[in-house]
Amino acid sequence: MFSTDELCSLRWDPTRQTVEVIDQTLLPHTLRWCHLDSMDSFCHAITSMQVRGAPLIGITAAYGLAHALQSDSSSENLERARATLLATRPTAINLHWALQRVVQAVAALPPEDRAQRALACAHRLREEDIVNCAQIGEQGLRLLQALPVGKTLNIMTHCNAGWLATIQWGTALAPIYKAQAAGLPVHVWVSETRPRNQGMNLTAWELQRAGVPCTVVADNSCGELMRRGDVDCVLVGTDRTAANGDVCNKIGTYLKALAAHDHAVPFYVALPLSTVDMDCASGADIPIEERDGAEVLSVYGVDAAGEGHAVNLAAAGTRAANPAFDITPARLVSALITEQGVLEANSESLAGLNFA
Amino acid sequence: MFSTDELCSLRWDPTRQTVEVIDQTLLPHTLRWCHLDSMDSFCHAITSMQVRGAPLIGITAAYGLAHALQSDSSSENLERARATLLATRPTAINLHWALQRVVQAVAALPPEDRAQRALACAHRLREEDIVNCAQIGEQGLRLLQALPVGKTLNIMTHCNAGWLATIQWGTALAPIYKAQAAGLPVHVWVSETRPRNQGMNLTAWELQRAGVPCTVVADNSCGELMRRGDVDCVLVGTDRTAANGDVCNKIGTYLKALAAHDHAVPFYVALPLSTVDMDCASGADIPIEERDGAEVLSVYGVDAAGEGHAVNLAAAGTRAANPAFDITPARLVSALITEQGVLEANSESLAGLNFA
Repeated sequence: MFSTDELCSLRWDPTRQTVEVIDQTLLPHTLRWCHLDSMDSFCHAITSMQVRGAPLIGITAAYGLAHALQSDSSSENLERARATLLATRPTAINLHWALQRVVQAVAALPPEDRAQRALACAHRLREEDIVNCAQIGEQGLRLLQALPVGKTLNIMTHCNAGWLATIQWGTALAPIYKAQAAGLPVHVWVSETRPRNQGMNLTAWELQRAGVPCTVVADNSCGELMRRGDVDCVLVGTDRTAANGDVCNKIGTYLKALAAHDHAVPFYVALPLSTVDMDCASGADIPIEERDGAEVLSVYGVDAAGEGHAVNLAAAGTRAANPAFDITPARLVSALITEQGVLEANSESLAGLNFA
Repeated sequence: MFSTDELCSLRWDPTRQTVEVIDQTLLPHTLRWCHLDSMDSFCHAITSMQVRGAPLIGITAAYGLAHALQSDSSSENLERARATLLATRPTAINLHWALQRVVQAVAALPPEDRAQRALACAHRLREEDIVNCAQIGEQGLRLLQALPVGKTLNIMTHCNAGWLATIQWGTALAPIYKAQAAGLPVHVWVSETRPRNQGMNLTAWELQRAGVPCTVVADNSCGELMRRGDVDCVLVGTDRTAANGDVCNKIGTYLKALAAHDHAVPFYVALPLSTVDMDCASGADIPIEERDGAEVLSVYGVDAAGEGHAVNLAAAGTRAANPAFDITPARLVSALITEQGVLEANSESLAGLNFA
């Protein structure tokens, strides 16, 4: 399904020599590409969640750093731009990882060679991501094929870990796309993922576009669907994975893991190794982003006439809190699905990986 | 705080001889009372959730049955009206309980005496509910006072189990109102309660009106808040309680109970005995209402200019499922708070209650 370059979240425009990304804040109502051609536009794209998803955040930042070096390739600007991009969002480790990859590729070079090398590095990270996600898809497909199920495999996911969160394929959705391609009948329970609704806005849109049957449910529904026996496995992504196998993913993931554990439903986490942070001994070390409470209190939608409105849901003066991620302890994770294979979520498994 | 009749969810208008209820579908944006003066208006009020909450549903139905007898007090109409009202919503047992109370009060009477007696019965159920909820508040207050906490007691609730779900006081919110009156510093985490947002729309509105500090959060946030140690207890209501102590409450309650259990946070369920169904051996016997998926896909809010809009959140053609309740097993319930005292959630405790 990813034979053309069209179906991707970020592309290089060789004519304008800029990056284009889908503005994900407008989905599913409008599909609009926007050019990132200034430091401000790169930072705004990440903080406002025009691009989101750990892998895509990282690659976008890498292109942002390459862009910054075009006008000023000094070591001072390299460090300044790196720090500025790193500060956009705190939780996903890919931001740090991708920026380090670019810095390592260019720091020792003469300044005049840095911009071109940085851009080549960003291109390489983008290509690697596609390959890694396709691999995750193949590895995850074997897990799905091994599940003892009836006619249709019912998979629950949370947030969006599809191609919109990466470049192509996705992490959690890659095995689902591979399953569909392999003729395995699948149906996906899409948890809407409040407060930003990435499940309803992005995952449902992706799956419908790909012809994968899916049903949106309130995040609250997930336990009840498991009690009914309507969930064969849960499959999610992660924004940062600690050395002990704890995973930090979109807020609400932990509640699904608890419900899956209580019903002996397998709970799988799909990730490229770039989301592993061996410097975090456990999830307790991972910083959790606190976003604006306004994201909880208002929402954007389209009325019956097709006109868009941002509406307040709560009474004026209502206070809201908005932690953006939570920690799922390794004990609740049935397996980690990586580009290097399927492994148990524990220190021994993670220590055995090749992070070269 | 309930010294006047104004602060209640349902009142009798002696001039027009009809029932008035707050149309809760308009909150928090508009506080409007509406008259229920036909069988259709009673049924519509319950199915559309103008009135909701197990106790209030029951009392509204009791008034509806009394109303039906005014024009036709035959035994046939008594049974027909009872069946019609009973069919409005399947999960809350109070609907069945309240209708039975009216039927038992009038069935043996001559038809000409039935309408007046039915109305008197509805009035009595309303008064009993106020007394029971105040008692639940006193019983729950003792539990809250016994919690080992710091300066402020952080209580998490779900959906709305306040005076809007009953007549006055509420079930889960009654101990909180009593705590505030007793000078105990409290702060309430209000889970927004998708898809109908009763937490954000009703509970936050109630608490703010009463001057109780509260913060709205996405339902997904509840595990993370517990991990941080920011939750001292969870306090919710129930729509039907099985003989073994399993509770059926608004969808998402079970996920909070799992998270509370995982963090050793007390999980309390407040209920009048009218929500106990000794005919249900366990939660597996309780019917779970499946509501229209459209409730998940669209939402009503008010724009910056104060104009209201119903907006679609998802792409056209998106499919949604909408189970309205889930089952929390008794093993996850720390205590049941009833008008007859605090008890363990198990068969022995429930069998020892006086349901007379």
